[in-house]
Amino acid sequence: MAASPDSENTSDAHLLERRVSRENLFRGKFLEAWRDTVAMPDGRTATREYVIHPGAVVIVPIIDTPDGLKLVLERQYRYPIEQVMIEFPAGKLDAGERIFDCARRELLEETGYQATEWARAGTMHPVISYSTEFIDIWFARGLSLGERSLDEGEFLDVFLASPDELAQWCHDGSITDAKTMTCMLWLQNVLAGVWSLDWRSAETCDAQEVLQPRKTFGT
Amino acid sequence: MAASPDSENTSDAHLLERRVSRENLFRGKFLEAWRDTVAMPDGRTATREYVIHPGAVVIVPIIDTPDGLKLVLERQYRYPIEQVMIEFPAGKLDAGERIFDCARRELLEETGYQATEWARAGTMHPVISYSTEFIDIWFARGLSLGERSLDEGEFLDVFLASPDELAQWCHDGSITDAKTMTCMLWLQNVLAGVWSLDWRSAETCDAQEVLQPRKTFGT
Repeated sequence: MAASPDSENTSDAHLLERRVSRENLFRGKFLEAWRDTVAMPDGRTATREYVIHPGAVVIVPIIDTPDGLKLVLERQYRYPIEQVMIEFPAGKLDAGERIFDCARRELLEETGYQATEWARAGTMHPVISYSTEFIDIWFARGLSLGERSLDEGEFLDVFLASPDELAQWCHDGSITDAKTMTCMLWLQNVLAGVWSLDWRSAETCDAQEVLQPRKTFGT
Repeated sequence: MAASPDSENTSDAHLLERRVSRENLFRGKFLEAWRDTVAMPDGRTATREYVIHPGAVVIVPIIDTPDGLKLVLERQYRYPIEQVMIEFPAGKLDAGERIFDCARRELLEETGYQATEWARAGTMHPVISYSTEFIDIWFARGLSLGERSLDEGEFLDVFLASPDELAQWCHDGSITDAKTMTCMLWLQNVLAGVWSLDWRSAETCDAQEVLQPRKTFGT
């Protein structure tokens, strides 16, 4: 058993796969899928089918109210799940869009809120077996309410909840969205003072080189 | 702003979408995708593209060692992410397979461990915008090591880590797999005594009616 998870300290040759060829399965309006033939570590070949995704951002918007700290959440019908889901605001990167621009845009469009301070917490991969998607996790505070402007065909409710309510819903199954539960892990540890955030003004984020899009699949 | 997330207490008519027609995009060896035309809440139509998935199980295997409590984890190359990922053991449901049978099978096949006690924690939806996938979350304890039997084309390392190490890796970006981070949320709250688990013997789980597959999409 390996003691370290750090691939720099471990030879991963016995795990790696290498592309031999690729074939487009389809290009839809939203989804694009490929089937690649790969060489496995033992030299044999296998096929890997996956969806190409431009990447996304999820935002944990925090408001300090007279009733204590609250989070801005959404209720939205999610067709593949056939349920109204509770989730943090989130959305896909537009072509060529910087991560921070996407975070700021999605928060405003979906909830109507603008934030004076932002912190880039980390990233997650929602579906590592069949999609290239990553979701960047951002915290936002210093919120002021303006006017939201939903995309055409987007219908969602915005509401506030306390961290305790959010935790309870993750526990009792009212929340099952993995990106929102992953944000809850971050929120819980940040509020406990165990994990720290690097807060910056919106202006500073806007000027940061570091906020270019992440490396995308195959580049 | 709605005060409650509970759809039973709230009319969701302003959020719901209804299928008008559907069209198969492709059926691969692993992936199957559809494009549905739906009627939106305002009566207009839109298309929804999504992947059909049979559902999956993830297992949080806990071992009590002389060095304290440890988790059984895997390192596996994930082609769409182009990285070796650290994750909890997990796998897809076979056709008609019961959830518990899948959990027991995947733990044994991938890690070689068998467990005397199991607890079904909850469920998550990894990608609510374009896949029907759910992942059932199980905890396992009372582990004994037998022999693993990986699927053909499956290459992975098994290793042990403490809850503190796991939390640190979720914080510093060594772990970005959303299902594993969601399990970390569960683990952290279970170990803190805030969330409880309903532990049962493997024999009891095996006999439980409740362990039939969940409702699948469109049924």
